[in-house]
Amino acid sequence: MTASAYAWQSVRAEALRRIRTREWPPGAMIPKEAEIAQELGCARATVNRALRDLAEAGYLDRRRKGGTRVTETPVRRAVFEIAIIRHEVEQSGASYGYTLLEDRIERLPDELAATLDQPRGTRWRRVIALHSAGKRPFCLEDRWLNPDLVPKERADFAASSANEWLVRNVPFTGGELSFQARKADTALASRLGCARGSAVFGVERITRTDDAAVTAVTLTYAPGYRLTTTLG
Amino acid sequence: MTASAYAWQSVRAEALRRIRTREWPPGAMIPKEAEIAQELGCARATVNRALRDLAEAGYLDRRRKGGTRVTETPVRRAVFEIAIIRHEVEQSGASYGYTLLEDRIERLPDELAATLDQPRGTRWRRVIALHSAGKRPFCLEDRWLNPDLVPKERADFAASSANEWLVRNVPFTGGELSFQARKADTALASRLGCARGSAVFGVERITRTDDAAVTAVTLTYAPGYRLTTTLG
Repeated sequence: MTASAYAWQSVRAEALRRIRTREWPPGAMIPKEAEIAQELGCARATVNRALRDLAEAGYLDRRRKGGTRVTETPVRRAVFEIAIIRHEVEQSGASYGYTLLEDRIERLPDELAATLDQPRGTRWRRVIALHSAGKRPFCLEDRWLNPDLVPKERADFAASSANEWLVRNVPFTGGELSFQARKADTALASRLGCARGSAVFGVERITRTDDAAVTAVTLTYAPGYRLTTTLG
Repeated sequence: MTASAYAWQSVRAEALRRIRTREWPPGAMIPKEAEIAQELGCARATVNRALRDLAEAGYLDRRRKGGTRVTETPVRRAVFEIAIIRHEVEQSGASYGYTLLEDRIERLPDELAATLDQPRGTRWRRVIALHSAGKRPFCLEDRWLNPDLVPKERADFAASSANEWLVRNVPFTGGELSFQARKADTALASRLGCARGSAVFGVERITRTDDAAVTAVTLTYAPGYRLTTTLG
């Protein structure tokens, strides 16, 4: 039996109606998939698809053994696309520029080594590069790379960025991402062409494969940057 | 035929292997679902589930008519949970505090009115509240509310926040979300208990139902805030 696109969306709409009208109240267990399928006259796989979608959207909480409940407080989720920086610039209509500033082997700071499960004193490859939009600095990429996985011989970042190379070449299986606001110090202000003390948007990201940490990067955007997504 | 949890994950792993080894190279069309199902000896719905997951993860690009291609450059997506502010504070182990600062009817700024599809001069409800962690300011909530949908009689925010009330009571169907860094001006610095000129993290969010805009909010977090998620 094939679940048509229409069918699961109808089931989703009906389930959402029951959640919103509190026919299925917050915290309550909802009927089994097979029961819902029988009641609505559709395949169980269709119900499964619809409930999975509602769980992803935060309306339902599915436990492997405990069945499916309506969440007490729906958690809303926002999805961001992690664009290649060049694409971000080009999509804004500006011409993209790239300058490699540093590429050398350096000792990992102890705290970062611990986060990356590397022994103290481990030396990684450090690459610093500036992405620009028009003639103006757009984003400073300050990156540590595992030299076993991304050696200079195999990955040269003189002409195009590590950001782009990694997305194309390293299978991505997990990691951590955080956003914060910070004040530009003298060095950062000089590289981003802004006043010292400006409020700048920072992204920190660690990428891991199944076996090892690949890279840790701090992206700092020039003042005025805004990261946007649509919801729902 | 029911797709077991194991089956679709195996199909996903096999498809991902083909993408990574470039057996299915970037930009190439992949075989039809029915062909893959026949080759692997599983249900077409199982293949569909696996490919959908890979598309959500950015490895495949599915077009309604044009079939499914391997993306030229995989787009990586990050998912953030939009927590209730009280939960964010409580999860950090601090005790949560809430103070309503303002609640009045006010004219929408023209630019915001345009964004919200409201006529110039429309008056909305404006609510300003401070969320604190321990005794320290944590987040300033500066919110506009559609008074037809969230009137004072029905929704009183003296004791608990509009943030929480909306998540519980207003069906959420869409909107926009953006993050940025900004400098605290005198008013903001005074409310957040930080130095003027501090770099603070701002979240702007517009929430809509199918029919109308419900609310536009700016959340500004005290210095040091970091929004974090795991990837993959």
